Amino acid sequence: MAYVIGVIGGGQLARMMVPPAIHLGLDIRVLAETEGSSARLAATRVGDYHDAETVLAFARDVDAVTFDHEHVPQDVLAALVDAGVAVHPSPEALFVAQDKIVMRRRLTDLGLPVPDWAAVRDAGALGVFLAEHDGRAVVKTARGGYDGKGVRVVRSADGADDWFAALAEGEALLVEELVEFRRELAQSVARRPSGEIVAWPLVESIQRDGVCAEVIAPAPNSAGRLADVAEQIARTIADELGVTGVLAVELFETTDDRLLVNELAMRPHNTGHWSIDGSTTSQFEQHLRAVLDLPLGDTGMHDRWSVMVNVLGGPEQGTLAARLPALMEDLPSVKVHDYGKDPRPGRKVGHVTATGDDLDDATYRARAAAEFFQG
Amino acid sequence: MAYVIGVIGGGQLARMMVPPAIHLGLDIRVLAETEGSSARLAATRVGDYHDAETVLAFARDVDAVTFDHEHVPQDVLAALVDAGVAVHPSPEALFVAQDKIVMRRRLTDLGLPVPDWAAVRDAGALGVFLAEHDGRAVVKTARGGYDGKGVRVVRSADGADDWFAALAEGEALLVEELVEFRRELAQSVARRPSGEIVAWPLVESIQRDGVCAEVIAPAPNSAGRLADVAEQIARTIADELGVTGVLAVELFETTDDRLLVNELAMRPHNTGHWSIDGSTTSQFEQHLRAVLDLPLGDTGMHDRWSVMVNVLGGPEQGTLAARLPALMEDLPSVKVHDYGKDPRPGRKVGHVTATGDDLDDATYRARAAAEFFQG
Repeated sequence: MAYVIGVIGGGQLARMMVPPAIHLGLDIRVLAETEGSSARLAATRVGDYHDAETVLAFARDVDAVTFDHEHVPQDVLAALVDAGVAVHPSPEALFVAQDKIVMRRRLTDLGLPVPDWAAVRDAGALGVFLAEHDGRAVVKTARGGYDGKGVRVVRSADGADDWFAALAEGEALLVEELVEFRRELAQSVARRPSGEIVAWPLVESIQRDGVCAEVIAPAPNSAGRLADVAEQIARTIADELGVTGVLAVELFETTDDRLLVNELAMRPHNTGHWSIDGSTTSQFEQHLRAVLDLPLGDTGMHDRWSVMVNVLGGPEQGTLAARLPALMEDLPSVKVHDYGKDPRPGRKVGHVTATGDDLDDATYRARAAAEFFQG
Repeated sequence: MAYVIGVIGGGQLARMMVPPAIHLGLDIRVLAETEGSSARLAATRVGDYHDAETVLAFARDVDAVTFDHEHVPQDVLAALVDAGVAVHPSPEALFVAQDKIVMRRRLTDLGLPVPDWAAVRDAGALGVFLAEHDGRAVVKTARGGYDGKGVRVVRSADGADDWFAALAEGEALLVEELVEFRRELAQSVARRPSGEIVAWPLVESIQRDGVCAEVIAPAPNSAGRLADVAEQIARTIADELGVTGVLAVELFETTDDRLLVNELAMRPHNTGHWSIDGSTTSQFEQHLRAVLDLPLGDTGMHDRWSVMVNVLGGPEQGTLAARLPALMEDLPSVKVHDYGKDPRPGRKVGHVTATGDDLDDATYRARAAAEFFQG
């Protein structure tokens, strides 16, 4: 019998798990939030992942459940575990990815390098932190943020009053030093329940307006110690938190040569999309292997460089399909990934990847391809 | 709006069109023969492709119809064309692939190199051909043969009496010289309706019991004139027959240094499966691009060599899934393709591909992986 994998959430990450599931002969089933989701081809059920009954019914007869996102509530995850379902990553590991304050605390306890931080509940506490950090800091909501949402730079103690006012009993905001960084990096690894860990090369991630815009794999000038340290950080987190599946660790390379952990994601991540076209084993195939506790695949690269550029929806833009012929005509070597989503402004609706032995050339081709969709 | 592609037939070729359709954002729909077909994930309808009503209902609102196999009857194809459906390859082109005698006649008329052949209707005519060819020949049914079925070596005029007896009015058998060949090669190209043609490298195909067992891309020692001639033959056939989509041309390299056309297939073909893991654009992506008249993709190779080995069902064999962990443990760089089919003896149920700079090493890994499934 084929392995059966259930994915909660019908976004582009679930969508991109479908091709490797087809090739490996896995039976992939998706619980989507809506009809017409990005992963609609594999959506066997549409329903609310906040509802334990819905999720339990979906998870019947699967070998493992995994996720398109980290938002499934802990009580639903607990119900799955109680029902004997293999949940990967585990609720305990996911708990750390679901709450930025919990995450900072765990990483600090593990002795891993993170920006200075504090959990603050009011303007007074924020003011104290600001005073200690040159009058500026980053405030983040502990839960629910993504792609720059729930993140704000503040320069005065009243800069987060609206968020403080919205806090429930016992909740707090995360405040962090405004890190002066040279660049952002990301290190992805995959870990099986049995403990095997395999890493991809360290990559550079270029953000625009708080959203990942481009990824270069491997990160230029990252051979040697920088790559070793980044991989060791990701391995430590995966091991210590017992992560199963893909773990992506976003890192700051600071202007004073520190490597600090920024964010964690316990699932395939935007900074690993290049691996579909650039690596022997993509992060989507590896995630499926890992959560089913199958031996992990080789992560060697096809070419020296892979460059991925995101495609965002914009006001002038129709569907990507309308722009496809011109792009293909001009750039026959670029790989296109259309998430089948309505192209609302700012929404990630696809990505393009170019690979090759010359970084400038690959970058040019990937950017030019994205321009066809966005220009 | 997304492009909509309809595929008639739910076998592994339709199945392997699904991953590139997902990535390109195409809406792929499959008319499958049965529930639980290899391409079941994209099967929007189950029905009989011999029935024009069924096929017309399936083809409503698609941008183009293409095929998993060449068996759709000409009257059904004509009904599609009459209804204004874009059918690729066209019924006229498919007609040549559906009947081996028609094919031999067209290739001969085009001046292309083929084995000596004749259409024979009785033992007398077969005897005449045998007398002219050292008393041995290959007899083939004009229609319906595949994977060695409908093919027989004969050494006496009565060697095909059962097939002669089964011929309907106006039908004939194809008889061909028994070619002494050094090896079998295959040249695939893709052609758009607008005329653009792109070729993959010439490959070597190793048959066992009339079934493709292994493919090496590119064919060893094939640089220069051999590759040029093979590509020119395939381009000529694609152009002259007006083929749209992938065309695979199986060739004999004879012991007296001729290159003869053996068979044609107007669809992705077993000899092109290596391209999923070995080429920038796989034959499945290219076929979709071609039949939708989208510009064709780059066919460069990731590595110097790609070796594909077929996995056949066998008497001792359970599902491939049961053997997957051991294979993945030993061979982390081999790519597995499980067609999701019941592993009946002799049936193609999957394939494995290894790529690399060293042919012996890639061959070893691909064969070892296939052994895990078949051993």
